[in-house]
Amino acid sequence: MAKFLIDRQERVVGFDNFSRGTSQNIRVLENNNLFNFQALDLTDMPAYFAAIEKLHKQEQITEVWHLAANSDISAGIASPTIDLRDTFLTTFNTLEAIRRLSIPAIFFASSSAIYGDLGPENLHEDMGPLLPISNYGAMKLASEAAISAAVESHLTRACIFRFPNVVGTPATHGVILDFVRKLRATPNSLQVLGDGSQKKAYLHVDDLIDAMVYIRTHADRPLNVYNIAPPDDGVTVKFIAEQVVRRCSPSAKIFYGEEKRGWVGDVPRFRYSTTRLLSLGWKSTATSEYAIIRAIDEIASQEGAL
Amino acid sequence: MAKFLIDRQERVVGFDNFSRGTSQNIRVLENNNLFNFQALDLTDMPAYFAAIEKLHKQEQITEVWHLAANSDISAGIASPTIDLRDTFLTTFNTLEAIRRLSIPAIFFASSSAIYGDLGPENLHEDMGPLLPISNYGAMKLASEAAISAAVESHLTRACIFRFPNVVGTPATHGVILDFVRKLRATPNSLQVLGDGSQKKAYLHVDDLIDAMVYIRTHADRPLNVYNIAPPDDGVTVKFIAEQVVRRCSPSAKIFYGEEKRGWVGDVPRFRYSTTRLLSLGWKSTATSEYAIIRAIDEIASQEGAL
Repeated sequence: MAKFLIDRQERVVGFDNFSRGTSQNIRVLENNNLFNFQALDLTDMPAYFAAIEKLHKQEQITEVWHLAANSDISAGIASPTIDLRDTFLTTFNTLEAIRRLSIPAIFFASSSAIYGDLGPENLHEDMGPLLPISNYGAMKLASEAAISAAVESHLTRACIFRFPNVVGTPATHGVILDFVRKLRATPNSLQVLGDGSQKKAYLHVDDLIDAMVYIRTHADRPLNVYNIAPPDDGVTVKFIAEQVVRRCSPSAKIFYGEEKRGWVGDVPRFRYSTTRLLSLGWKSTATSEYAIIRAIDEIASQEGAL
Repeated sequence: MAKFLIDRQERVVGFDNFSRGTSQNIRVLENNNLFNFQALDLTDMPAYFAAIEKLHKQEQITEVWHLAANSDISAGIASPTIDLRDTFLTTFNTLEAIRRLSIPAIFFASSSAIYGDLGPENLHEDMGPLLPISNYGAMKLASEAAISAAVESHLTRACIFRFPNVVGTPATHGVILDFVRKLRATPNSLQVLGDGSQKKAYLHVDDLIDAMVYIRTHADRPLNVYNIAPPDDGVTVKFIAEQVVRRCSPSAKIFYGEEKRGWVGDVPRFRYSTTRLLSLGWKSTATSEYAIIRAIDEIASQEGAL
């Protein structure tokens, strides 16, 4: 994201505590004049506020992109405190800093997980009830709610992006990385959690960034909520497993479980409406199939598995 | 609530930090064998967990009624940290204690504020989008989300009660108390925030308790979400102002503002669907008008204003 904005000649300050990513990921921007980075934990409010206040005095901050979160859903089910801290309190502190400094706009990475398991219905942005089935989804919904209240009281503008499953590099977790690593450990077999029938839409991270910046430019209400997704219903876990095997270890045999869900909090299947985003004029150029195949190449390469 | 359950011969342990109520409110239960009380701040997790664990070892706790919150919406707009701490972190800590001790059930006081301002639509439990306009509503929605995720991972049963405006005693805040106190200060005039046209449904606290206990007995899904409201569309602020004046200071003149909303975060008007609760078999015996008139008597008496 930082790279994308800097390529457009925008100044970017990055904060990260490297709880999931690494400093390796930003090395490409290290000597760029438009980039400024500070290793910082957003849940440490005094340090966070001191840093953002100092920067804001040097050069007025016009918007905040809040993309920090614990993105490992199953980790948050084992320990809810992770999602509270890294997904929700980072949002709360960001809103508090924005409020105190009168920064007018926030762009927030939310998630399809806020919808919970609404069955086979086509998930659109005005849908309810919102009953998430993972702490990850719960803390993303909590964040949306806090942003919505902030728009009523002090924010001029907010965009909430409801991400689909996103693939690409740098990868820190997710189904492709799991499969690639499993195959490196046991090249002849791949054990899949669940029966492989879970079907989800996947977007490549480059398309996701493109969509977010498009929404920033074109959505002009005080509060803008957008599903972001590829133009199709998605692919099954079986498809992903087969593609990873084909690319990394063609002789491996794939074994499936019996459960429809891979793990507690996993949503087995959903259809994601992007009518609102289509109406705004943005459409993904890549299907879920293409995104997966491209990401498998990238992730296998990241892991040295090719 | 404690009194109601004890009248049914149930054992009750109460925790409260008296941030809004006072020990006066539980004096009536002081020497009751079925009641045990500890002054405790639920946001102090070590103290909270130690207390609930000790009690649970003495006699197994079968359910938790989580009614603690900052109930003063405007206070939370001035300082979002109040709602974070008293409304959301109390829920988070309660869920965490319940998880560690394998307590199977939670009953939670949510709010119509989670719906935000959806205009003139009839608000039903499956409605979206959920975009609260106050931090109070945001932290209630955050709490619902965390409970929903907990049902998926460890809770056997949860009931979420979406409260309407509730009136009665002991009163710590709210429109009736405001008006009664204003009239004591200036007996000849009453200044109303907003133009008086805000219309809301009001339930008397005794009816609210009755509804919650009814839902506890009759709703049998793992996660049960219920709007609780009287059988009518509500009364206007103008009606309340006139009734308070009539009861407390008949010669006072009423002055209205020009805004449709009394304050930021106030929802000017909504209709609250109780179809689900009616289907379960519960119906309020009192209209909003009756609840208001009864509560004015009780609150005026509490304040020594009669």
